[in-house]
Amino acid sequence: MTDLLGRVHAAAGPYLESLATRPVQDGDALDLLASLGGPLPAAGEDPARVIDRLLAVGTAAATTSSGPRFFHFVTGGVTPAALAADWTAALLDQNAFSRISSPFAHEVETVALGWLRELFGLPATWGGALVASATFANFTALGCATHWWGFQHGVDTAADGLAELPRIPVLSSGYVHASARKALQMLGHGRNAVTVCARDDVGRVDLPLMRRHLESLRGAPAVVIANAGEVNTGDFDPVAELAALAEEFGCWLHVDGAFGLFAALSPRTAGLVAGIERADSIAADGHKWLNVPYESGFALIKDPARLTAAFGMPGAAYLPGAGDPAAGYALSGPESSRRARSLPIWATLAAYGKEGHRAMVEKHLDLAQHLARRVDAAPDLQRLAEVPLCIVCFRAAPPGVTDLDDLNRRLGAALLADGRVYAGTTVYNGQVALRPAIVNWRTTESDVDFFVDVIRELLPGLT
Amino acid sequence: MTDLLGRVHAAAGPYLESLATRPVQDGDALDLLASLGGPLPAAGEDPARVIDRLLAVGTAAATTSSGPRFFHFVTGGVTPAALAADWTAALLDQNAFSRISSPFAHEVETVALGWLRELFGLPATWGGALVASATFANFTALGCATHWWGFQHGVDTAADGLAELPRIPVLSSGYVHASARKALQMLGHGRNAVTVCARDDVGRVDLPLMRRHLESLRGAPAVVIANAGEVNTGDFDPVAELAALAEEFGCWLHVDGAFGLFAALSPRTAGLVAGIERADSIAADGHKWLNVPYESGFALIKDPARLTAAFGMPGAAYLPGAGDPAAGYALSGPESSRRARSLPIWATLAAYGKEGHRAMVEKHLDLAQHLARRVDAAPDLQRLAEVPLCIVCFRAAPPGVTDLDDLNRRLGAALLADGRVYAGTTVYNGQVALRPAIVNWRTTESDVDFFVDVIRELLPGLT
Repeated sequence: MTDLLGRVHAAAGPYLESLATRPVQDGDALDLLASLGGPLPAAGEDPARVIDRLLAVGTAAATTSSGPRFFHFVTGGVTPAALAADWTAALLDQNAFSRISSPFAHEVETVALGWLRELFGLPATWGGALVASATFANFTALGCATHWWGFQHGVDTAADGLAELPRIPVLSSGYVHASARKALQMLGHGRNAVTVCARDDVGRVDLPLMRRHLESLRGAPAVVIANAGEVNTGDFDPVAELAALAEEFGCWLHVDGAFGLFAALSPRTAGLVAGIERADSIAADGHKWLNVPYESGFALIKDPARLTAAFGMPGAAYLPGAGDPAAGYALSGPESSRRARSLPIWATLAAYGKEGHRAMVEKHLDLAQHLARRVDAAPDLQRLAEVPLCIVCFRAAPPGVTDLDDLNRRLGAALLADGRVYAGTTVYNGQVALRPAIVNWRTTESDVDFFVDVIRELLPGLT
Repeated sequence: MTDLLGRVHAAAGPYLESLATRPVQDGDALDLLASLGGPLPAAGEDPARVIDRLLAVGTAAATTSSGPRFFHFVTGGVTPAALAADWTAALLDQNAFSRISSPFAHEVETVALGWLRELFGLPATWGGALVASATFANFTALGCATHWWGFQHGVDTAADGLAELPRIPVLSSGYVHASARKALQMLGHGRNAVTVCARDDVGRVDLPLMRRHLESLRGAPAVVIANAGEVNTGDFDPVAELAALAEEFGCWLHVDGAFGLFAALSPRTAGLVAGIERADSIAADGHKWLNVPYESGFALIKDPARLTAAFGMPGAAYLPGAGDPAAGYALSGPESSRRARSLPIWATLAAYGKEGHRAMVEKHLDLAQHLARRVDAAPDLQRLAEVPLCIVCFRAAPPGVTDLDDLNRRLGAALLADGRVYAGTTVYNGQVALRPAIVNWRTTESDVDFFVDVIRELLPGLT
């Protein structure tokens, strides 16, 4: 088996070194994908040849979203310590289900959750769950909110469900993310459960409108979602003001901080998340600004008992149950058997510390400002929003072009087809725009410059 | 970074070689866990030292649930090709969110889902989703069932939730697993949504009772869960008879085949799952009998459109939406960003083929029969059930001991404390029993013999 692993290790060095300069996507290499298909093999094939083929195709056709020039979505890379720890998690193949299935994985998860609380300045009394993604961090947090809400109505929703209950009132600004809606959808509330209180087309919160909605509930329990990091510009809902409203009306306050929670790491941006300690739940995703692999979402919950109430397993005689010292995190989160996804989180925090991660965040803040300056200095580009964090929202606006939405849509497609750098388009304030997000530890100023250069190189061919 | 990866690679060989003979758990090594704790480091530490420490503690304190002597729960190992592919997934760090985030991961997932359908003899028209676990395979399948059920009532539950609806009727035998109940709990139905139709304390299905329940619904839509592989003995609900009932009453039929679905691989056991092609959904978990890493659950759905209806993301301008050629599996499953968990599934099926996996299943069938014979031959052991698959349910019953439940509870605890082999206790038919499950590719006849020897060595000290 080590022979197979040696093949992966041998491929790793050249692949990782290539990330600094290779295109995000080599379109020609996609032709190789066909060699992985065909019908299910009857007899199998030499495993060494299988792994060689996977590596040959994978290292050529991979989308280097872990490289420094991928600004699409909000996608971090993987720090060296996190990647080595992820290999360790695969090697040891621990089941982070319970103390009895792996005391090692259980302990590392306990330490990792504690360190995450410290990283964001939250009290040690908070509970938490390591989950698959930002979507499931929202799912876990809003699952706790659901159980709290049912309890106010005298129903244990974990046991008896939502059938006897009215629709849950959920209020947020227009910044509410699709993943929070999907979480509500999967929890049985429907994606349309959110009442959006926005004062403009951008989605900024309308606090007086939210107050009127809350008043109209006449004391019925409700959930307020504060969005710490909007995806188009990196703007924030005013968390403290939403916390004050939630406290006044006795609501559950959930903070969706998928990437924005990391603003807490720098004194330059900590003000953006002031008040998060007043929330009942917070969701974030480590594959974004922590720079750990996928499957690294986490939910932090003020009252840990809510996690076990909402996500405890029904009993089974062959499994450890609630109160059993052999039990563990499967009873306080959505999943049962899980890989030891705590290892990369533990390793990156151990290796680079609070200071190292603060420095990474501040480097990205600087790079975003640098990109904003480059955009502002370019006569054919137009910035559309302030840059409070790590996202720069702008569009191409060369003199004389009238249909800028069409141009920017074609520019977005041309960028992806070109493949040297990746960024996605969005619609911001009714205008088609690019919204590069800078959260990868590998990204340098020259990568950001290269991004601007590629755009300005492509533009003349599109007008 | 390759230096760090080299450290993991160097540790891999000795660790994997040790699996054949090392204890499942070295209790003394758990003292090492304290060295991973403490407060969040401010400045960090040399990453090489961090990884060395993680490897030193991990390889000593790990629970070798991937080794040949772990018979607790239902826990497979990881084939060499699957482990190498998992390292590849970590190295390439692809986001299996959509075609645009990784055409490579999207293509491998498409191939892997097709191969899984072929492996179980299901038509190519079925859809599927690779999810985190058996729990989320049930969640995904029952989420589709929920959407179908809401549709019968004229409600799009994905948009509007469960608030206007009655409680969903879910019928099953007493074999229904805790993970199916937890899935119902998380979907908003409550874990008590299941009406159990059992004719005895073991939980065998009472078909006439289920028929009477279905008749009492007077045509209202309902969900029937057939359990393909009960956890105490490996027994099966009669899938074809439940399919006939479901068809007669127009129900959604879900088959929970977490590990039992793999009975389809051998002509010796395929009869146990006859009728699965009549189901609307099937859930299974690759970390069990496929011998791939954790995070390898999968749901197979007869009507693929149900997946996108139930799990499609609400729109967001910066993300690919339904119908967009850039979209992908995030719109047909619970999760958004995900690691390329298809790679280990693809690699193990490519390397060992249908025949290799059939041979592995049959080896385990043989080992289970061997264990049953060893139990039957031992004067101090008593088998409690037939052995249709890979689980042997038995207890210690030395002559002259009156409180056998107490003895077997202490035997279970003594086994785990001893640590050389692992198995769990359960309560079967009112009796405390052991229920070793044999699904690891590394397990040999001598491991099974060793398991019996350890039990019979411990027993005299307990009576």
